[in-house]
Amino acid sequence: MYRDRLASLLNSVKDGSVSPEAAMKDLENLPFEDLGFANIDHHRSLRKGFPEVIFCQNKTCEQVVAIFDSLIDEGNVLATRASEDMFEAVQGKYPEAEVNVAARTIVHRHAQAPPQNENTILVVTAGTSDIPVAEEAVVTADVMGNTTETLFDVGVAGIHRLFGNKEKLDAANVLIVVAGMDGALPAVVGGLVDRPVIAVPTSVGYGASFQGVAPLLTMMNACAPGVVAVNIDNGFGAGYFASIING
Amino acid sequence: MYRDRLASLLNSVKDGSVSPEAAMKDLENLPFEDLGFANIDHHRSLRKGFPEVIFCQNKTCEQVVAIFDSLIDEGNVLATRASEDMFEAVQGKYPEAEVNVAARTIVHRHAQAPPQNENTILVVTAGTSDIPVAEEAVVTADVMGNTTETLFDVGVAGIHRLFGNKEKLDAANVLIVVAGMDGALPAVVGGLVDRPVIAVPTSVGYGASFQGVAPLLTMMNACAPGVVAVNIDNGFGAGYFASIING
Amino acid sequence: MYRDRLASLLNSVKDGSVSPEAAMKDLENLPFEDLGFANIDHHRSLRKGFPEVIFCQNKTCEQVVAIFDSLIDEGNVLATRASEDMFEAVQGKYPEAEVNVAARTIVHRHAQAPPQNENTILVVTAGTSDIPVAEEAVVTADVMGNTTETLFDVGVAGIHRLFGNKEKLDAANVLIVVAGMDGALPAVVGGLVDRPVIAVPTSVGYGASFQGVAPLLTMMNACAPGVVAVNIDNGFGAGYFASIING
Amino acid sequence: MYRDRLASLLNSVKDGSVSPEAAMKDLENLPFEDLGFANIDHHRSLRKGFPEVIFCQNKTCEQVVAIFDSLIDEGNVLATRASEDMFEAVQGKYPEAEVNVAARTIVHRHAQAPPQNENTILVVTAGTSDIPVAEEAVVTADVMGNTTETLFDVGVAGIHRLFGNKEKLDAANVLIVVAGMDGALPAVVGGLVDRPVIAVPTSVGYGASFQGVAPLLTMMNACAPGVVAVNIDNGFGAGYFASIING
Amino acid sequence: MYRDRLASLLNSVKDGSVSPEAAMKDLENLPFEDLGFANIDHHRSLRKGFPEVIFCQNKTCEQVVAIFDSLIDEGNVLATRASEDMFEAVQGKYPEAEVNVAARTIVHRHAQAPPQNENTILVVTAGTSDIPVAEEAVVTADVMGNTTETLFDVGVAGIHRLFGNKEKLDAANVLIVVAGMDGALPAVVGGLVDRPVIAVPTSVGYGASFQGVAPLLTMMNACAPGVVAVNIDNGFGAGYFASIING
Amino acid sequence: MYRDRLASLLNSVKDGSVSPEAAMKDLENLPFEDLGFANIDHHRSLRKGFPEVIFCQNKTCEQVVAIFDSLIDEGNVLATRASEDMFEAVQGKYPEAEVNVAARTIVHRHAQAPPQNENTILVVTAGTSDIPVAEEAVVTADVMGNTTETLFDVGVAGIHRLFGNKEKLDAANVLIVVAGMDGALPAVVGGLVDRPVIAVPTSVGYGASFQGVAPLLTMMNACAPGVVAVNIDNGFGAGYFASIING
Amino acid sequence: MYRDRLASLLNSVKDGSVSPEAAMKDLENLPFEDLGFANIDHHRSLRKGFPEVIFCQNKTCEQVVAIFDSLIDEGNVLATRASEDMFEAVQGKYPEAEVNVAARTIVHRHAQAPPQNENTILVVTAGTSDIPVAEEAVVTADVMGNTTETLFDVGVAGIHRLFGNKEKLDAANVLIVVAGMDGALPAVVGGLVDRPVIAVPTSVGYGASFQGVAPLLTMMNACAPGVVAVNIDNGFGAGYFASIING
Amino acid sequence: MYRDRLASLLNSVKDGSVSPEAAMKDLENLPFEDLGFANIDHHRSLRKGFPEVIFCQNKTCEQVVAIFDSLIDEGNVLATRASEDMFEAVQGKYPEAEVNVAARTIVHRHAQAPPQNENTILVVTAGTSDIPVAEEAVVTADVMGNTTETLFDVGVAGIHRLFGNKEKLDAANVLIVVAGMDGALPAVVGGLVDRPVIAVPTSVGYGASFQGVAPLLTMMNACAPGVVAVNIDNGFGAGYFASIING
Repeated sequence: MYRDRLASLLNSVKDGSVSPEAAMKDLENLPFEDLGFANIDHHRSLRKGFPEVIFCQNKTCEQVVAIFDSLIDEGNVLATRASEDMFEAVQGKYPEAEVNVAARTIVHRHAQAPPQNENTILVVTAGTSDIPVAEEAVVTADVMGNTTETLFDVGVAGIHRLFGNKEKLDAANVLIVVAGMDGALPAVVGGLVDRPVIAVPTSVGYGASFQGVAPLLTMMNACAPGVVAVNIDNGFGAGYFASIING
Repeated sequence: MYRDRLASLLNSVKDGSVSPEAAMKDLENLPFEDLGFANIDHHRSLRKGFPEVIFCQNKTCEQVVAIFDSLIDEGNVLATRASEDMFEAVQGKYPEAEVNVAARTIVHRHAQAPPQNENTILVVTAGTSDIPVAEEAVVTADVMGNTTETLFDVGVAGIHRLFGNKEKLDAANVLIVVAGMDGALPAVVGGLVDRPVIAVPTSVGYGASFQGVAPLLTMMNACAPGVVAVNIDNGFGAGYFASIING
Repeated sequence: MYRDRLASLLNSVKDGSVSPEAAMKDLENLPFEDLGFANIDHHRSLRKGFPEVIFCQNKTCEQVVAIFDSLIDEGNVLATRASEDMFEAVQGKYPEAEVNVAARTIVHRHAQAPPQNENTILVVTAGTSDIPVAEEAVVTADVMGNTTETLFDVGVAGIHRLFGNKEKLDAANVLIVVAGMDGALPAVVGGLVDRPVIAVPTSVGYGASFQGVAPLLTMMNACAPGVVAVNIDNGFGAGYFASIING
Repeated sequence: MYRDRLASLLNSVKDGSVSPEAAMKDLENLPFEDLGFANIDHHRSLRKGFPEVIFCQNKTCEQVVAIFDSLIDEGNVLATRASEDMFEAVQGKYPEAEVNVAARTIVHRHAQAPPQNENTILVVTAGTSDIPVAEEAVVTADVMGNTTETLFDVGVAGIHRLFGNKEKLDAANVLIVVAGMDGALPAVVGGLVDRPVIAVPTSVGYGASFQGVAPLLTMMNACAPGVVAVNIDNGFGAGYFASIING
Repeated sequence: MYRDRLASLLNSVKDGSVSPEAAMKDLENLPFEDLGFANIDHHRSLRKGFPEVIFCQNKTCEQVVAIFDSLIDEGNVLATRASEDMFEAVQGKYPEAEVNVAARTIVHRHAQAPPQNENTILVVTAGTSDIPVAEEAVVTADVMGNTTETLFDVGVAGIHRLFGNKEKLDAANVLIVVAGMDGALPAVVGGLVDRPVIAVPTSVGYGASFQGVAPLLTMMNACAPGVVAVNIDNGFGAGYFASIING
Repeated sequence: MYRDRLASLLNSVKDGSVSPEAAMKDLENLPFEDLGFANIDHHRSLRKGFPEVIFCQNKTCEQVVAIFDSLIDEGNVLATRASEDMFEAVQGKYPEAEVNVAARTIVHRHAQAPPQNENTILVVTAGTSDIPVAEEAVVTADVMGNTTETLFDVGVAGIHRLFGNKEKLDAANVLIVVAGMDGALPAVVGGLVDRPVIAVPTSVGYGASFQGVAPLLTMMNACAPGVVAVNIDNGFGAGYFASIING
Repeated sequence: MYRDRLASLLNSVKDGSVSPEAAMKDLENLPFEDLGFANIDHHRSLRKGFPEVIFCQNKTCEQVVAIFDSLIDEGNVLATRASEDMFEAVQGKYPEAEVNVAARTIVHRHAQAPPQNENTILVVTAGTSDIPVAEEAVVTADVMGNTTETLFDVGVAGIHRLFGNKEKLDAANVLIVVAGMDGALPAVVGGLVDRPVIAVPTSVGYGASFQGVAPLLTMMNACAPGVVAVNIDNGFGAGYFASIING
Repeated sequence: MYRDRLASLLNSVKDGSVSPEAAMKDLENLPFEDLGFANIDHHRSLRKGFPEVIFCQNKTCEQVVAIFDSLIDEGNVLATRASEDMFEAVQGKYPEAEVNVAARTIVHRHAQAPPQNENTILVVTAGTSDIPVAEEAVVTADVMGNTTETLFDVGVAGIHRLFGNKEKLDAANVLIVVAGMDGALPAVVGGLVDRPVIAVPTSVGYGASFQGVAPLLTMMNACAPGVVAVNIDNGFGAGYFASIING
């Protein structure tokens, strides 16, 4: 759209119907539109299988359904932090939409979504309470076109459970490690593999975990340099970042 | 070394000079060494161009030189957080070692280091005060075998400087964005590119930046999901993580 | 009232019915009332269109209605943080009162309110979840006699939406920028305009935004010097301050 | 299990059915299993009377019952942070299970649990509000095979209550001291006895106790060096640690 | 410069020496430069008397002098957070530069700076220790073309000093109020005047002022709605913001 | 009781029925009981009019009534943080007990309570939302035998309301000043009077008041040295301390 | 001075040389001076023995001497936080001035200072490192006309040292208790006496005392209601407040 | 001493030279001394090999030597946080005193110190920078009569180094695990052994470790229940607590 308008303006300059001075004034007001090619991004995201993501928190059911309507033809659609009501509202209109209750996600797959990337993203949790956050990461990575694997409840309090699965760790191209309480697991995993580890702190724990601050700090300070952290309980962010680097 | 010892043991079992029972007892004490194959990792790191890294803080000059001695034949060597004294001590013995005063790094390149990865890691800073941290990231990424580019002093207070370099942003495979004070630049960059952005908060700023806590929080909460943050002033960690995902 | 009392006292001194000594003693107990000229302030606020503001939190419906009663003739009246019950109670008595459900405000306009100031206060939000706080700012600025404009959901994650509206930004005399999560938008806007920017952090976000602390710190540390911040979710404070400086 | 598999492998090497090379490859994947002798730990825990502990928070009733099923024959079983529903669910199947409503625990005792250790663990509280946390410690220490005593409501505001019970303090082998608000009691107790004191901060108190942070800091900074602290409200952790050192 | 280049390009399109297509491609790479028109901003800043500001911290004397060189002809120049060495270096080359030791500023006034704005910016401090921060605000407001007044050491501990100067408060168009320790003064001033109050917390005080956090919070929570706060010790930011709204 | 036992022991030594050695051993176990003369304290508290105080939080209605039963004959009784249920339970048994709904207190006055101390304790609040905390202070001071006065809603945003009541301030022997948000009022009052000011921060305010932390810090840092602060929302503590020093 | 001016004005009204209207206008500008009667306060402070206090931090030697000059005839003078240079400067001019090196105070006693109050203020410390802060409290209380006693190094780690001095505790009218690390001593003292306890946290301790935050929180949360806390290391504030309530 | 006085008093009662009434009065003033029997504690500490400990920080060389003088005959003496000057001062008088420069300790061993406890206390560190804190723990445990072992630089970033030493871990009776940065090692060790683990956070690390707060939180939240934490950098506290429980 912007390109059409720009071409038209330049042609007018060429044929003399617009003076260079007038064109200059016009151009000064345009450039920022040049940044905004929302449609082009749209197309590319469809082509690459990157979904449009709807963060449902603080939205109404009607709004969520309306956004599904506008995106449904462009590629996979992912909604996060959805409520039970939204599950019903979306599935009422799109029965084929997939709901993950633990992860609080809704996914609608596009018929022409590209095949999954064969590189595996492995999602690991320290405990069973961390699983809902892990599921959000799994769903996100999956809907963005990645092969995913899971390895749950292998925290450092019983570290043999982790080591008994070293092959799974070694087979992954990107690892997402979800942990609350001491948040120590990502650092340990980061010391065992040479692939990137994305750490997700969870708000699970006793008082002095401060709703996830303690594991977040642990992860920010991980001695193993191949570890980065996302926000507390932010499984979506981990899944998204993992997808970007899994190419 | 460990593999040799293991092969020898198994051959002894085969030729009967060691009983299975004795071997079993021996193996029970070995397995953890099996995790550590420091030598094998060494070789692989040489092969891949991954350096052994020396964190100089709280070490003596003698210790730093001694570690250089032990690593010098195995691949590129990187020392971070080095002091002036260490610069002299290492260059006294290895005059070819390269020193970066701003970054406080020492690098010794191995003759057979593999050629650089052609994918570019772009290191961006918001201000001039962030450059030392950025340089640590540049040196780390470079010594780990990556092509690097820099784009300094393009913070959001004069955001046109950033947009005037959009081609550079688009050309990068991985971006490291270093910022103190409001720490807003990585989120803006993350909204402009579809490649991974590694944000590095710096301790530059007025009182309420709390030595880097404010930009760290900004980055942890970046709306753009392709952004992750490392620790305050941790240019090394960003460079290292960028290298892992630049493959 | 105070002036009447003072005039009467001075006349009594003049006519000798009160001695200077007695008057002096009386005056020593008066002066602080001289500070309080609530009535005079009242008149000036009516004259200027500044409303009396009722902070409804922790008040009863009866109290809120009673305060409306006492202020209704003096100028525009604004109530903030009102509950549904208060909406009903006030409109039950003053049906012409205007309610804004999202902003949780009640406004009663005085028949002789002065005409609106033609300088525009532009209220911008980063996301849709920030709109209720923005609405509180809009209502406040409006009832205090200002022309307002809005520009919602133009956060840095899709920064082209902001730039596509640069004319709107340039046309504003004062800007209020509302953002949660990374709180980066006010710094970006502050780098684009040369008018004052009042930043409002919101409590929207994942765990490590700490209910608005993260965007508050971002805004306190904004590199662009034309940016100041008000308290978390304090749309009223931003609207009020914007009004004061919009003259 | 692992030992059987290892013995079998080594015998195969001896008899030539597996080559040393193949064995070596196999062994490289095994060692981490060597860490995980879950069964052996199981047996030892049964032998020692150490219970398997179920942290009920974020689990379903079904999951809790299922874990009871799998552990019921191995030794005492302890469930912490259980809800009323879980009390019913577990007692519905195992009527002999003991419930402590204040402590929110469920205990199932094994018929062959070893006799109690005669060294006494004394659990002290500063106030009556700290009793639920203290009870969790008592139940934990008891089910792990220790003799326990209690001394409640002897906080420093009426310190004579503590001194009136000095004999009880002196008779204990390990002391657990539970306190909210100022958290001063453990330091005082630590100054009176020469046995280890395990301090438990509770979330009881006015605003500036920050849900237990204030007493936690007091305990971390206790002048008396024989005092260590566990997490806020973590009676279980205190009881467990006390058991380990009561041997 | 950018405008020249743009005019030249458009003229080339008009005379046919550049095709619209080629111009379009060229323009697509330009637009972000269009944001930056450094020269135009330069000219406007000269015209308006807005100085270019140099934040000296983390810069070398050579760098500071070099920036003075490049800005000296464009308008007033202000350097903040300058060291003694920088004072000497700049005055060595520009003897007419004015140094304020307490404020740590260097100012160079342009011969054609516009006349001062007659609206007064009043800078108030709670104590004498707050004066250096206040001076930075005064210098900034002055060099940006404002009339300034000061009122020092009128903190709430002796509040009569403040009230004895109420005329001065009433005469100001914008007020900057600088305070450490309890930071209560801006709220009191905000309750006395109907003009905007910009509060500056300082790092002066006993331990629990946390280097300015306590007064910053006080100011963020000021009951009087006409008060906004800038960063700790940020006299420059206050002076700059006051200038913007003093027009 | 203790005194009787001691007298009996010493008489036994005198008459030879107990040897000095046996008495010595006995005495070594006694001394701490010497601290605990709860009864003696009881009597003194009755004599002085100091009530026994029941902190109801985390107690059952039955417990609260039981404690009333045991204290009812000894002097005035005060229960704080009581619930509606407790109001009913206590008044069911003691209809003459006085309930203060806002303050959440129950008071039972003893027939022989000493006359009120004529020195006045003045309880001041910044806003109307601070009144419940203030009421707790008033009730506490009253039941401990003090004359109380109140002065509500005189915060610094309209400081003339405070000054209009300076006589009331001057007449007080001890002042309790309750404030949320910026917490600035106690410092201002402390600058106006030469009597002790006890500051009480409340949890009233916008986000960055952090449930009372902001006003608490303001009060801890009050420039006026005659100001001390108690815990957040702790009206009882202020009333109690005021009583102790009102003698 | 103000009174003279007021009397003169009223006499002018009486004799008709000033009209009531003109006087009214004049009075409206006066009242705030009515608050400030600095001289009257001066006289009263001399009469009561309350010193003028100089907070030396951030002042020059010249300024400190100049303030001594202006206050020297009005009563006792106290300077706190003085440096060695200031000791010399003041004693150079006033050799009779008394210096306390640990407390960093300078005292000049007025010849007609009133006799000391016979009620004792007892200053207690937990450790030897707390003594400098305690000395500041002692000097302050002494120069304000109080009898002082000290009891040092009786912290809770060896609580018998405290109890061995119970008579001293009981004899005090006001107690100041200084403690770092766990800050538990004031709560214990508050449980032993029925007189007011002013707690002073010090910045002495290991890392997690956070330069005095830990003991400050302990003291804010003291279970014993007769305890209030002042700022970290603020011996002066404690001594001053103790003096006010020792009357 | 106290016992002598008590015996003498009781004998006086027996022989009638002191009446029971007079003795009673005397005893009422004594009991707190009964708590303090410093001498008796002294003897016991000599008997048990517990040293008297001197915390040197904030003491003078003269004071430290004087305390050595008074303790030298009673048992082993330990001084912590000693400076170089103190090393010289003590060794100048007691040349046989042992100095540990890294740990900053001075030890003087008593000729009749009991033999070492054969149970081993193992001190583990994550990195080399943690060694000084570890040395303080080693010296403390050693001088208190324990056998010690060390295992340094086995952090989770290269976890094979830890597992390669599992026998050493299994052989220990008590483990002290020292770690900065992520502080993850104690949790991992706690998952591997069934003996008590005392975790010591150190102030080593990048910005967001907040001088040891991050590892402290990690340790407070350790999933493995056999782990407790002491204060930041508090090697002494860990060594002391380990000694108490190593019996």
